[in-house]
Amino acid sequence: MTDITSTANPKIKRVLDLRKRKVRDEEDLFLIEGYRELKRAVEAGIEIETIFYCEEFFLKDNELKLIDKRPSFSCSRAAFEKISYRDRPDGLLAIARKRHRNLADLERLLADKKAPFLMIAESIEKPGNLGTMLRSCDGAGCDALIVCDPVTDIYNPNTVRASIGTLFTVPVIEASSEEMFSFLRQAGILSVAATPHAKKLYSSVDLTKGIAIIIGSEQYGLSKLWMENSDMPVSIPQRGSADSLNAAMAATILLYEVTRQRA
Amino acid sequence: MTDITSTANPKIKRVLDLRKRKVRDEEDLFLIEGYRELKRAVEAGIEIETIFYCEEFFLKDNELKLIDKRPSFSCSRAAFEKISYRDRPDGLLAIARKRHRNLADLERLLADKKAPFLMIAESIEKPGNLGTMLRSCDGAGCDALIVCDPVTDIYNPNTVRASIGTLFTVPVIEASSEEMFSFLRQAGILSVAATPHAKKLYSSVDLTKGIAIIIGSEQYGLSKLWMENSDMPVSIPQRGSADSLNAAMAATILLYEVTRQRA
Repeated sequence: MTDITSTANPKIKRVLDLRKRKVRDEEDLFLIEGYRELKRAVEAGIEIETIFYCEEFFLKDNELKLIDKRPSFSCSRAAFEKISYRDRPDGLLAIARKRHRNLADLERLLADKKAPFLMIAESIEKPGNLGTMLRSCDGAGCDALIVCDPVTDIYNPNTVRASIGTLFTVPVIEASSEEMFSFLRQAGILSVAATPHAKKLYSSVDLTKGIAIIIGSEQYGLSKLWMENSDMPVSIPQRGSADSLNAAMAATILLYEVTRQRA
Repeated sequence: MTDITSTANPKIKRVLDLRKRKVRDEEDLFLIEGYRELKRAVEAGIEIETIFYCEEFFLKDNELKLIDKRPSFSCSRAAFEKISYRDRPDGLLAIARKRHRNLADLERLLADKKAPFLMIAESIEKPGNLGTMLRSCDGAGCDALIVCDPVTDIYNPNTVRASIGTLFTVPVIEASSEEMFSFLRQAGILSVAATPHAKKLYSSVDLTKGIAIIIGSEQYGLSKLWMENSDMPVSIPQRGSADSLNAAMAATILLYEVTRQRA
């Protein structure tokens, strides 16, 4: 028997409400869509409140294992399509509890690291860029992503989607730029700020010590704090048009340069 | 006086038709939306057939210079919103003639290059990925992007958009993988194929000679031809989840490693 057949069901409305930041902030909940994303969330210990599913859309048969023993509702095709924000839904969507990590968590996380490898994303505006940065952090083996003075929230459905679930595998810390600046100074971690105006190339500086890569907002770049006080301002060559790389691509290039130097 | 006020105007319908690949292929035309994109197309000598504009949306006053002396139609707000595929239109959209470049063009282009720097994208499916690859090619100073056995067409509106106009600044060549394979052999250019199975790290091989970076499709990776015959198969470390990087991110990392080694 299908639990939810009508798109007017109040549970469906609740999911749609959680697409709004205001509601996510008030309820401290967010949405996770997709098998891969939900699997990573579960493995990372994210608290799943409710799962909505539609077996018709399942690609394989592992999906039911994720649902097992968790509060869940089966949906009609129409009901699931209403809550899905994908072109091709795979039949899984969950309401989950946000996880908040702060600088005390970061301190614990770095306790046994000889050369911390951090990335700081300041005032990023586009959820998709934040998601891509998380994928690169995951791939490059970065210890944590610190989101400073956020414009978009990390639990935006498009961040979850663009991160393909690496939002749950990479530790994400929330802090203000000022707090983070003090943290780095105290921990002896060098700030490597990406800015087109820097004289040194990103690949000409030593990234094997404890460092934090800092990427500024798409529209305004880095704030004055990082622009004026970064230990190592670096630039990425742009041989063609001045603005060919976006914030997420710049992050990917810098993160992998760290990995290369440390290999 | 506004030339086009109704969304039912046949000229509006023609623009909408050009969103379809079949129509683009038949007419050998495509769409360019946006000031930056159109400016780059004009500077690159792309033949502009018609410009549609809506002054209400203009951000600055340079837009009119682009329109000057070109066949153009002013549109009402409603008519322009109908043809725009952006959330925030900037009031410019053009129909342009496709430019086709083949291996003879590539040969001419490379005539005076001592160490050619090429990128080959094989059977890429997502227009957005092709657009991002073009941005990275532009930034890294790659000599040309060769699109082999294409699945998505390079003149898809989403490729144009994701490329932010670098589709016009980077020479784009169309060829089959087999033709391209022969071309590289004859020209003495080494093929560097990105594949997760390669034993050598991308950063451990010499990329200062004439090389072509080869990236395979999102879903299937490289074809047998490149998998079995590449001169230098290379892998990119993925420290976290196995699939954290997509084709466009892998391309960006490899392209910038070439630039780094050649700096």
